Amino acid sequence: MKLYVIGIGLIGGSMAMELKKCDAAIEVIGVDTNEAHLDEALALGIIDKKGNIADINQADRVILSIPVKESLAMLPHLLDQLKEEALLWDVGSTKATLCKAVEEHSKRDQYLAAHPIAGTEFSGPQAAHLGLFDGKPQILCEAKKTRDDLLSWAKTSFRQMGMYLRFMEADEHDKHMAYVSHLSHISSFMLGKTVLEQEEDEQNIFDLAGSGFESTVRLAKSSPNMWAPIFEQNKDNVLNILSSYIENLENFKRKLENDDIEDLHQQMKHTNQLTTILNGIKHNN
Amino acid sequence: MKLYVIGIGLIGGSMAMELKKCDAAIEVIGVDTNEAHLDEALALGIIDKKGNIADINQADRVILSIPVKESLAMLPHLLDQLKEEALLWDVGSTKATLCKAVEEHSKRDQYLAAHPIAGTEFSGPQAAHLGLFDGKPQILCEAKKTRDDLLSWAKTSFRQMGMYLRFMEADEHDKHMAYVSHLSHISSFMLGKTVLEQEEDEQNIFDLAGSGFESTVRLAKSSPNMWAPIFEQNKDNVLNILSSYIENLENFKRKLENDDIEDLHQQMKHTNQLTTILNGIKHNN
Repeated sequence: MKLYVIGIGLIGGSMAMELKKCDAAIEVIGVDTNEAHLDEALALGIIDKKGNIADINQADRVILSIPVKESLAMLPHLLDQLKEEALLWDVGSTKATLCKAVEEHSKRDQYLAAHPIAGTEFSGPQAAHLGLFDGKPQILCEAKKTRDDLLSWAKTSFRQMGMYLRFMEADEHDKHMAYVSHLSHISSFMLGKTVLEQEEDEQNIFDLAGSGFESTVRLAKSSPNMWAPIFEQNKDNVLNILSSYIENLENFKRKLENDDIEDLHQQMKHTNQLTTILNGIKHNN
Repeated sequence: MKLYVIGIGLIGGSMAMELKKCDAAIEVIGVDTNEAHLDEALALGIIDKKGNIADINQADRVILSIPVKESLAMLPHLLDQLKEEALLWDVGSTKATLCKAVEEHSKRDQYLAAHPIAGTEFSGPQAAHLGLFDGKPQILCEAKKTRDDLLSWAKTSFRQMGMYLRFMEADEHDKHMAYVSHLSHISSFMLGKTVLEQEEDEQNIFDLAGSGFESTVRLAKSSPNMWAPIFEQNKDNVLNILSSYIENLENFKRKLENDDIEDLHQQMKHTNQLTTILNGIKHNN
């Protein structure tokens, strides 16, 4: 079985390693515009050889793990060339524009829109590792549009990687991700930007970072190449939740200006319930 | 040596444990308005007995580790009663109002304004543990106003807990903490609030939290009893940095509305330099 990985970074690389672990007969072929990443992936044994996008008609399985804007541009053409038994899935952070772009495609049923919630602030093949997906959710969008035999193979494979599956419509996925992921990244990037602008003494940033800054700003280490296109693709949902966030901050500011500390206290106490939510809920596998 | 700990939570409790570890002869006396916390601290062996604020004239050392507003109210009266050899230090997150409140006090030189950067989102005596301060900065404000022999004892003790010392003016401390700590907490609380308001399905919050939300929202688990007074005490600095933050978010929103993705990319790339700052700088002990 030939597995093409287009974009051999954290997610694509780790997923190739997992598949190869379960089936040593799989040949992993890497495709990347970054030649250094390809060399690294080869040296690390993540891929068996470098490949060419023109040979995608040789592939049995294809992982599309590149920034979402490029996925959008490439997906229809890649599907055009797929042989009949082949399955292609992407792993991007937005799903609606992709699903829309191929909804009328004759090979729509050979595509699966997937989003493993396993990204970190690290990127590149050197970040790839076995175990990345263990215990993490894999969100599958419009899964019914994927051919049964291919979907079945994919579900088994993702579960073997330790993931549990969740099914959503693409629009619903993008809305939830704007709330729970995309806003967090904007909040973190802008927090980092604000502190960099105000705090001239880098030693202070470092010494005092343990007082809260370090964890809230972790996501500001993320790759702009990955994130700028995500915000672009999910613009409406992101603008919507960003407005709500700014409104809440403006309200907090007003209350503090007016010394309404009791109201601030109430808001924080109410938000504390997140502790229970984040600690408590069990999921069904 | 009698050590009074007023407020027997994470910081006060852990500090008492460290001091007792270095000198088993120290008797730790706990004072707290929360009787359950006192009982817990006693059961956990963090304190040797419960005490009374009226007996503070018996103390050789006093740790004041209660919300900053209460510290402000109590500090002058506590100093009034201290015997001549005694030292009192507080561990609060704002320093300017406290230092100002006692600047003319006849026993000013028996007070040390300290801020160990070791807080977490957890609180209460059950969160206290040895090792909490290891490798963490202890900020001492206006240390020259503390009597030499007492300051010297404190510096040795804090270093024995594994802390490295930094010296700042109180105003400077509060400004930096607004930037690096207080803003992070507001950003996190309001992020949590926004998502709770928009995301009706708690299971989604839980499943998708790994996509960035969990780390940015960690601080929203913090205690409102501790944080509301901090924002109040440091109002001017907090409002100032909060305005800059909102401005940056508004700007991000405008750029996204206008599809200026290149500008967003530049902003994020610029902010990525935090990675180097947070990883790279070495401090001198």
